[in-house]
Amino acid sequence: MYSFKNDYSEGAHPEILNALAKANFEQVEGYGEDCYTTRAVELIKQQLDAPGAAVHLLPGGTHTNLTALAAFLRPHEAAIAPCTGHILVHETGAIEATGHKVISVEVTDGKLNPAHIQAVLDAHTDEHMVKPKLVYISNPTEIGTIYTRSELQQISRLCRAKNLYLHIDGARLGSALCAAGNDLRLPDLGELADAFYIGGTKNGALLGEALVICNTALQADFRFHMKQKGALLAKGQILGIQFLELFQNGLYFDLARHANAMADLMKKAIAGAGFEFLTQSPTNQLFPILPNWLIERLQEKYSFYVWSKTDAAHSAIRLVTSWATEEAAVAAFIDDFNTCIKKG
Amino acid sequence: MYSFKNDYSEGAHPEILNALAKANFEQVEGYGEDCYTTRAVELIKQQLDAPGAAVHLLPGGTHTNLTALAAFLRPHEAAIAPCTGHILVHETGAIEATGHKVISVEVTDGKLNPAHIQAVLDAHTDEHMVKPKLVYISNPTEIGTIYTRSELQQISRLCRAKNLYLHIDGARLGSALCAAGNDLRLPDLGELADAFYIGGTKNGALLGEALVICNTALQADFRFHMKQKGALLAKGQILGIQFLELFQNGLYFDLARHANAMADLMKKAIAGAGFEFLTQSPTNQLFPILPNWLIERLQEKYSFYVWSKTDAAHSAIRLVTSWATEEAAVAAFIDDFNTCIKKG
Amino acid sequence: MYSFKNDYSEGAHPEILNALAKANFEQVEGYGEDCYTTRAVELIKQQLDAPGAAVHLLPGGTHTNLTALAAFLRPHEAAIAPCTGHILVHETGAIEATGHKVISVEVTDGKLNPAHIQAVLDAHTDEHMVKPKLVYISNPTEIGTIYTRSELQQISRLCRAKNLYLHIDGARLGSALCAAGNDLRLPDLGELADAFYIGGTKNGALLGEALVICNTALQADFRFHMKQKGALLAKGQILGIQFLELFQNGLYFDLARHANAMADLMKKAIAGAGFEFLTQSPTNQLFPILPNWLIERLQEKYSFYVWSKTDAAHSAIRLVTSWATEEAAVAAFIDDFNTCIKKG
Amino acid sequence: MYSFKNDYSEGAHPEILNALAKANFEQVEGYGEDCYTTRAVELIKQQLDAPGAAVHLLPGGTHTNLTALAAFLRPHEAAIAPCTGHILVHETGAIEATGHKVISVEVTDGKLNPAHIQAVLDAHTDEHMVKPKLVYISNPTEIGTIYTRSELQQISRLCRAKNLYLHIDGARLGSALCAAGNDLRLPDLGELADAFYIGGTKNGALLGEALVICNTALQADFRFHMKQKGALLAKGQILGIQFLELFQNGLYFDLARHANAMADLMKKAIAGAGFEFLTQSPTNQLFPILPNWLIERLQEKYSFYVWSKTDAAHSAIRLVTSWATEEAAVAAFIDDFNTCIKKG
Repeated sequence: MYSFKNDYSEGAHPEILNALAKANFEQVEGYGEDCYTTRAVELIKQQLDAPGAAVHLLPGGTHTNLTALAAFLRPHEAAIAPCTGHILVHETGAIEATGHKVISVEVTDGKLNPAHIQAVLDAHTDEHMVKPKLVYISNPTEIGTIYTRSELQQISRLCRAKNLYLHIDGARLGSALCAAGNDLRLPDLGELADAFYIGGTKNGALLGEALVICNTALQADFRFHMKQKGALLAKGQILGIQFLELFQNGLYFDLARHANAMADLMKKAIAGAGFEFLTQSPTNQLFPILPNWLIERLQEKYSFYVWSKTDAAHSAIRLVTSWATEEAAVAAFIDDFNTCIKKG
Repeated sequence: MYSFKNDYSEGAHPEILNALAKANFEQVEGYGEDCYTTRAVELIKQQLDAPGAAVHLLPGGTHTNLTALAAFLRPHEAAIAPCTGHILVHETGAIEATGHKVISVEVTDGKLNPAHIQAVLDAHTDEHMVKPKLVYISNPTEIGTIYTRSELQQISRLCRAKNLYLHIDGARLGSALCAAGNDLRLPDLGELADAFYIGGTKNGALLGEALVICNTALQADFRFHMKQKGALLAKGQILGIQFLELFQNGLYFDLARHANAMADLMKKAIAGAGFEFLTQSPTNQLFPILPNWLIERLQEKYSFYVWSKTDAAHSAIRLVTSWATEEAAVAAFIDDFNTCIKKG
Repeated sequence: MYSFKNDYSEGAHPEILNALAKANFEQVEGYGEDCYTTRAVELIKQQLDAPGAAVHLLPGGTHTNLTALAAFLRPHEAAIAPCTGHILVHETGAIEATGHKVISVEVTDGKLNPAHIQAVLDAHTDEHMVKPKLVYISNPTEIGTIYTRSELQQISRLCRAKNLYLHIDGARLGSALCAAGNDLRLPDLGELADAFYIGGTKNGALLGEALVICNTALQADFRFHMKQKGALLAKGQILGIQFLELFQNGLYFDLARHANAMADLMKKAIAGAGFEFLTQSPTNQLFPILPNWLIERLQEKYSFYVWSKTDAAHSAIRLVTSWATEEAAVAAFIDDFNTCIKKG
Repeated sequence: MYSFKNDYSEGAHPEILNALAKANFEQVEGYGEDCYTTRAVELIKQQLDAPGAAVHLLPGGTHTNLTALAAFLRPHEAAIAPCTGHILVHETGAIEATGHKVISVEVTDGKLNPAHIQAVLDAHTDEHMVKPKLVYISNPTEIGTIYTRSELQQISRLCRAKNLYLHIDGARLGSALCAAGNDLRLPDLGELADAFYIGGTKNGALLGEALVICNTALQADFRFHMKQKGALLAKGQILGIQFLELFQNGLYFDLARHANAMADLMKKAIAGAGFEFLTQSPTNQLFPILPNWLIERLQEKYSFYVWSKTDAAHSAIRLVTSWATEEAAVAAFIDDFNTCIKKG
């Protein structure tokens, strides 16, 4: 049984494990004040071309979102998110647990646009309602779609005009930045967003997300917030070592490209066989719509999520590739897929 | 410069790194539903002799305390802690951030006793005050002292009589259980506490704490709380693998014994030279009271915290050993210490 | 300018003011432990035929909802509400500020039904999502519609089957219970809901809402929650005196009947002139859809909210009557309305 | 049985009740946007000589403190309070429930001084601890003592130097400002504090506290916070009418002077009989230390709190007077007191 269930089934890229082993007995300062973290942070800032940014390494994605939003927002301020947004659906109310409402916007492609945001602003007119203050988007979205540079610029422009913060969840950011059709570069994010994070967990690290706070007004005392939320690991060096490894020779992007390439092979095979997809994803998550009988056959040898029913006889499934996905496994899947179809 | 500053300066015990590397490419379920976590949890329950306990693996200590207390307490309920308690002093208000007051009890040895707890209950008489509901203690305490079995039994008895939960912070539990004079065993904790955690970060793991919820009434839905607080790592297996390694062949206790033995060597040398200690610690943290000139000399070759001034000419310092402390470094320290004294 | 803007423009019914003045110099216990509150609570329990209920008097509606939900829910538990629900829209994130998500259900008539609730349950399947635990409905709804006994029974039945709490916001409960077509009685609420409140502010009191906690499992320590949220007034007697006055001779229902009768006069006149309404409201809030020119004319002599645009030339307005609405003012409004129409 | 238990046993001063009755049928805007509130706010700002201050009327004291502190503090920031502070002891963890720690300072007279505050700052050195950000004091204190102008200036100066907010709980502010020995005037508070409130509930109103936010940086969006915490009464005019009545002709201070004068009569009688007091209170709360047998006798005719045991045979009691305390009752008490003593 090979798993295309998610991009966190395996451990870390071997070079990361090696780096951890190599630094293992070196005595370093605790709580992220070690030399590895310092170097990783500097490296990320260089690659962002954002010397004024603050970069912090946190253990996981939900943890990063909740720590950041709790730090950024005052009690009556709310976030705006597309209905598929991770903070809205799959973080067990983590943002609300810090006291803030997340306002849901109905979308079908996982993406917000300025009109969505403006509509929320228009609906929130006085102190009897929360004050929308932060726009949360994910790139890629939770359903694999990506934002173009122009789309992000438009959102950013509106946010600045309306005094809203723009926070980008980059749990799978590598996959977005390496996707076919992407025209966003890392420095664009530093320029357009107030904060965003570069996901490590889903792209080769054991754990770890690099939160970039671009807006200097949001940077003060951030380590207090991290500590308060349990996000300041005593052995912070294990995050620093990993991000240093991911960013010093482009490994982060190599891994993302591999994941995307594996997905692309599957996408072409499935599309080639005449099937549609629930979403247009150039990233490492695919949502093909398949007949239920075919899904059942594939489940005999592969694990993946059945995402949603699309009609009585069909469902969308989610196939996820990662840095660790073996090309042979993808080839086998395609083979099995085609065989199943022929047999009918 | 050798560091005796804390027990999280180095990475993980090599066997743990090996185990992580060995399992690295195995595809497992995410979010702690992997086979390693399952086995680690079962092993811990066996060693506790507590089949009804619930065991969860979380990333860090503050994170564990805040997730547990937020889950256990209703909004008006408060924790009682000694004035040196980690949740009271060194967690940046993490418990208060989940809505709960922590009531401080003045103590000098870091330990609570039933009289302290009863005094708090006596002072909280009606709905104009919080309702004390949970007793928080650390074993060993933040200043190295430990609880005897009898002391813990007395606290536990009062807690049960008064309908209070007993939560034990075991960030350095291994050191306490392996200390000279200790008569507590792991199963005693399962019997006497409502919840406690077994610290991994400070005893050989890269990160990770095993929270044991003994009281079945507190077990429901705990994974919801973990997720909400960002404590459910996507690659939960990295905690499972580490705890399995720590507990399957007694490595956890071997490492704690080593840390204690290293501290003991230092303690004997310092006491032998006629110095007093701020606290009576049989564990891996020592608080010798030394003349300031001596402290300055030692700081030339060793790093450690100066804990508190005891008079104009003396201060208490904190020396911490760990699983990774090299015996040669300890010998060198003792040598240097004795040399300094002779020179005067 | 006469106001039909809301039902809290005036002070209190004169009998209530008299009762306050009469008791003014009597020395009573503070914080709601006075004899008036005790008697009011007993009276309400009798009229509910619910000797086991707990009744508490709180200052306002938002305050009551937030205190109750914070007391009833554990951190990971969420409320389900129709999209028009007061807690969802017009309480500035009060529920989220206590840590809980409110799940929105799209409806057009302001009302939830079992299918809506079941759909939310179906969508919340594991610990990565909040746990729906409480159903919030308002009767009458924020747009004037009411629940029948049978509708409420069906919701209650599902809630009990699924272990959900049913909380009813009764800010305008009097108006619902006295509405044409209503078949719910006060004791039905005690039987079908886990908690509900009887609104005083909008039905003749200066301020005050009576929260009825029917479910004994939710009653413990409620005064702690009230105090913590600032809802335990030092001079609690001013709430007790008012509710005693409202309930001892049926004044509460007399006032609601008056408000409804005034609305009914307006409704008949507007409908008689051939206009439609946005919602079918038998209560003290009406939402007629009028041509914009007519609205502008009416605004010269009357104040009211323009609720929503329905097309380029029409809008729905909100007309609210209350215990204090003068029959002469209603007659004048109808007159003016008809005159405007004739003039065109 | 006459009560000296507290200053909220009776209703409101008759002029206030008259004013409420007089305005009763006037239609006004809701939620504190009525003309009475506007006028009361203007009047208070004039009397403060602080045109830039923001003044808001809230229902009660705990409610005011929690709304203000939640609005003023970021998540990691804490308040400093004397150990007797109302927010620390008698608000059921209301501040912690909004996420903030309150740091307790041991004092015997209920008052903070700059040295206390500096000691807290010295102890909070990094991000592992909360960040002290707000100094909370009460004037008069919970045990009847008052701050001189010079004392308050010193605290204010330190707060400004250290970037701390100064918040003054004035639940009984009238009594402090009218006390013998007081040299503080209302405008001094506006100048020295960042925020303070003028208590109405305990000085003649049915309910209501006027929060003055002097620091313009803390004023933004305060009505959002009020609404979120349930502190924006629909019939806000009932607070406006009361504060207008209290401040337009000096009634507020007349009532406070009466309360103080009544206390002073009792104080002189008790002191004249040779008894000591637990605290030096020139305000409306007295804490005489009396033999237990005498306390028992007095309890036959008077109700009051027994505050604390001072030795085996003596206890301190609390006697509270108010605007409503009858001079005849005070005379009777003194008589009975003297008679008891003579009888022995």
